[in-house]
Amino acid sequence: MNFRMITNILGWILIFEAGFMTVPTLTALIYSESVVWAYLITIAICLLLGFILVWKKPRNKTLYSREGFVIVSLSWIVLSIFGALPLYISGETPTYIDALFETVSGFTTTGASILSDVEAISHASLMWRSFTHWVGGMGVLVFIMAFVPLSGGNNLHIMKAESPGPSVSKLVPRIKTTALILYLIYIALTLIEFILLLCGGMSIFEALNTAFATAGTGGFSVRSTSLAEYSSYIQIVVTVFMLLFSINFASFYLILLGRVKEAFTTEVVTFLGIVASAITVITLNARGFFDTVGDAIKHVAFTVASIISTTGFATVDFDKWPALSKACLVLITFIGACAGSTGGGLKVSRVIIGVKSIAKELYLLVHPKQVKKVTIDKVPVESEVVRATNVYMVCYVIVFAVSVLLVSIENYGLVTNFTAVAATINNIGPGLELVGPTANFAFFSPFTKIVLIFDMIAGRLELFPMLVLFFPGTWKK
Amino acid sequence: MNFRMITNILGWILIFEAGFMTVPTLTALIYSESVVWAYLITIAICLLLGFILVWKKPRNKTLYSREGFVIVSLSWIVLSIFGALPLYISGETPTYIDALFETVSGFTTTGASILSDVEAISHASLMWRSFTHWVGGMGVLVFIMAFVPLSGGNNLHIMKAESPGPSVSKLVPRIKTTALILYLIYIALTLIEFILLLCGGMSIFEALNTAFATAGTGGFSVRSTSLAEYSSYIQIVVTVFMLLFSINFASFYLILLGRVKEAFTTEVVTFLGIVASAITVITLNARGFFDTVGDAIKHVAFTVASIISTTGFATVDFDKWPALSKACLVLITFIGACAGSTGGGLKVSRVIIGVKSIAKELYLLVHPKQVKKVTIDKVPVESEVVRATNVYMVCYVIVFAVSVLLVSIENYGLVTNFTAVAATINNIGPGLELVGPTANFAFFSPFTKIVLIFDMIAGRLELFPMLVLFFPGTWKK
Repeated sequence: MNFRMITNILGWILIFEAGFMTVPTLTALIYSESVVWAYLITIAICLLLGFILVWKKPRNKTLYSREGFVIVSLSWIVLSIFGALPLYISGETPTYIDALFETVSGFTTTGASILSDVEAISHASLMWRSFTHWVGGMGVLVFIMAFVPLSGGNNLHIMKAESPGPSVSKLVPRIKTTALILYLIYIALTLIEFILLLCGGMSIFEALNTAFATAGTGGFSVRSTSLAEYSSYIQIVVTVFMLLFSINFASFYLILLGRVKEAFTTEVVTFLGIVASAITVITLNARGFFDTVGDAIKHVAFTVASIISTTGFATVDFDKWPALSKACLVLITFIGACAGSTGGGLKVSRVIIGVKSIAKELYLLVHPKQVKKVTIDKVPVESEVVRATNVYMVCYVIVFAVSVLLVSIENYGLVTNFTAVAATINNIGPGLELVGPTANFAFFSPFTKIVLIFDMIAGRLELFPMLVLFFPGTWKK
Repeated sequence: MNFRMITNILGWILIFEAGFMTVPTLTALIYSESVVWAYLITIAICLLLGFILVWKKPRNKTLYSREGFVIVSLSWIVLSIFGALPLYISGETPTYIDALFETVSGFTTTGASILSDVEAISHASLMWRSFTHWVGGMGVLVFIMAFVPLSGGNNLHIMKAESPGPSVSKLVPRIKTTALILYLIYIALTLIEFILLLCGGMSIFEALNTAFATAGTGGFSVRSTSLAEYSSYIQIVVTVFMLLFSINFASFYLILLGRVKEAFTTEVVTFLGIVASAITVITLNARGFFDTVGDAIKHVAFTVASIISTTGFATVDFDKWPALSKACLVLITFIGACAGSTGGGLKVSRVIIGVKSIAKELYLLVHPKQVKKVTIDKVPVESEVVRATNVYMVCYVIVFAVSVLLVSIENYGLVTNFTAVAATINNIGPGLELVGPTANFAFFSPFTKIVLIFDMIAGRLELFPMLVLFFPGTWKK
């Protein structure tokens, strides 16, 4: 284990975190908020610690697979621990665990909040919450890789560990360039949304926050009512962008290159098919809750986009909808977005691989002596990817089950416990009943919050990087 | 596809079903119940159809894998369709769908009932319900194989398709002898329980019913209150036998051969460990619901044994227990019993393989260039079995999710819908809330009942045999 290299990268993480915090600091200065001190103190701490760690350059810059996983999970943990400080120092959250929950929820783009009155929070901290979504959405290490020469060219391990989805596609041979292209697309899309929201009459502050939270598929809002009070225009713009940010960014790159047909991969088409089916079924089922069909389609489309993209914005209280609608929403909670997007969940490509490997299994039962490969877009999927995907899904179910057990120690209802875990491990935000779209996570005990904090990070990093930390073999020489 | 051979075996199924029905017919004669006619008519129909189908002997007796699967699933469907006739003809169930639900629930050893007043039913039909548990528990085709020379020696496909668990262990080289040994152990254990129940003061009728329902890990009881009204002695005897019938029968064979140490396989030890942990956690958590610690342990042990063995008997209304207890019960609902027992669920061995393949995946992430095999009891598990197990679990999740969606069309609560599917696909019986231990499944619409009927059979036959029926390749030449 190359510890020197790990601490070096953690140092960079802290320096970058100090950089990220200039955004809320500037906000505090603009609105002359006293919370500015909380941010300045944290920036000082991060810079001090960061430069100490970066000072001694590691002689050996080689990173192997296990270092990649350890770096990614430790980076996210460090980022959250220090990112929570301003909220705690300023007293805007009652305890440090609450501050940590809120910050992890931000970076992991979950959007679950422990704040009951969002409007009481300073502009600076609201901006920080939204900005953590934006940073966490595309991945902080991918960001750093785009700008800092980290290691001996072998950053693929880090990118593999941080990027969502069963396999990482390099857009161009160089990882650094790939990271840069991804971030440029990300920045461009965020900017377009920001401008469209401004056109809809939002203030610069609101538009920036909403654009950050949509881009990271996060879901923190600057209003307690989420997006319910905004105009239909704003709601429709956000619906469209939630869906756009759920699509594999490689597809946007292909579109930019003029290879439009290739951009519509099986995963993207399946994703759009699932969205369309869910909107149809829920609109038919929950029609009675709206005045007009148009209204129904608008709110259902918003909710479906919000849940499948794992953003978690709300315009209506979908906890009141009929059982079938809620069951559909819970189901798409698990499916989630496309691989290589900023969205969470199991990812559409994993579901496709899962279904195709079932078809393969049935084929082999009927024709036991033949050989069959799982293919996607006519390309055979490597058997390791298929195996890892199926193991991932089994692992996911087990982590999920254990989390529900631990959360159940507090004596709330099964639906609350189940959907609290589903909403955090899938990085969505709201669940049903006590953690429904009009509620928040404040009432849970510190123990439950720690379980859910683990679930949020494990969900964002797709389980294995976090589990590797607990695997004894990782720390052996 | 060897259709001649398939219809031939279906003929045998009908003849055997007629034979099975002599049990309720005799009961009806003993209690002079008019329902005897319903059974006699059905026996006549079964014999007539059966002999027609058996008449023409197939020239080609070869069975391949796909025929094995098709035979097993069609046999169970035919068995249920005709087995439901007496309940319908006698008017003891309101509709034919209800009769079918009750019969499928019997054969699949689920024990979910649509009867609100069990005590209003004739002795003959109560006996038929319990006896279907007993027949379905060990598998009807395994039974037939033990006595009828079905095909050219290659019955392993049938046994593989009907037996629970990821892999079938032949106790002795000849399948027929294996089937016979399994049935002898089954009969012996049932007999011992019957005698012990008689000693506890049960009538012959009650003892026979309870022994049949325990042996098949079914759960139909002759009283509306299930086993709540019986003595502690009876409850403890049933607890012990529910656990015994959840253990791989191969272990009993090894014990009979004096190879006691080998009988405690990893699966058996893990199973017992899970049972002990669940009893401990739930007793601590639900202690307040009982007068004494002894009482608490007795009822919790009974409930845990009943749920993990997928029997479904109840002595208390566990739906009232705290959230953690209920979450534990829901979790062991999915784990289920050992492979090669009469219990349902995912099976402990699948969970072990799942967990071990996660450990393997983590190992490979940390040491990407090494080779590692999943082993159980120091024997490497064939990679096909590991793959099939993981695919099975993914498939299980998908069938589960789709079923919950379909059941949600009726507008009941999420917990009701979720646990109704969990209780049927895992062949347990009771769920929570509207389908809790003091309730029944009568209120569901015919559509929902058909979905749950499918889940019961799919769960009992472990998905693939039922899914193969819908796979176009199965029916091709």
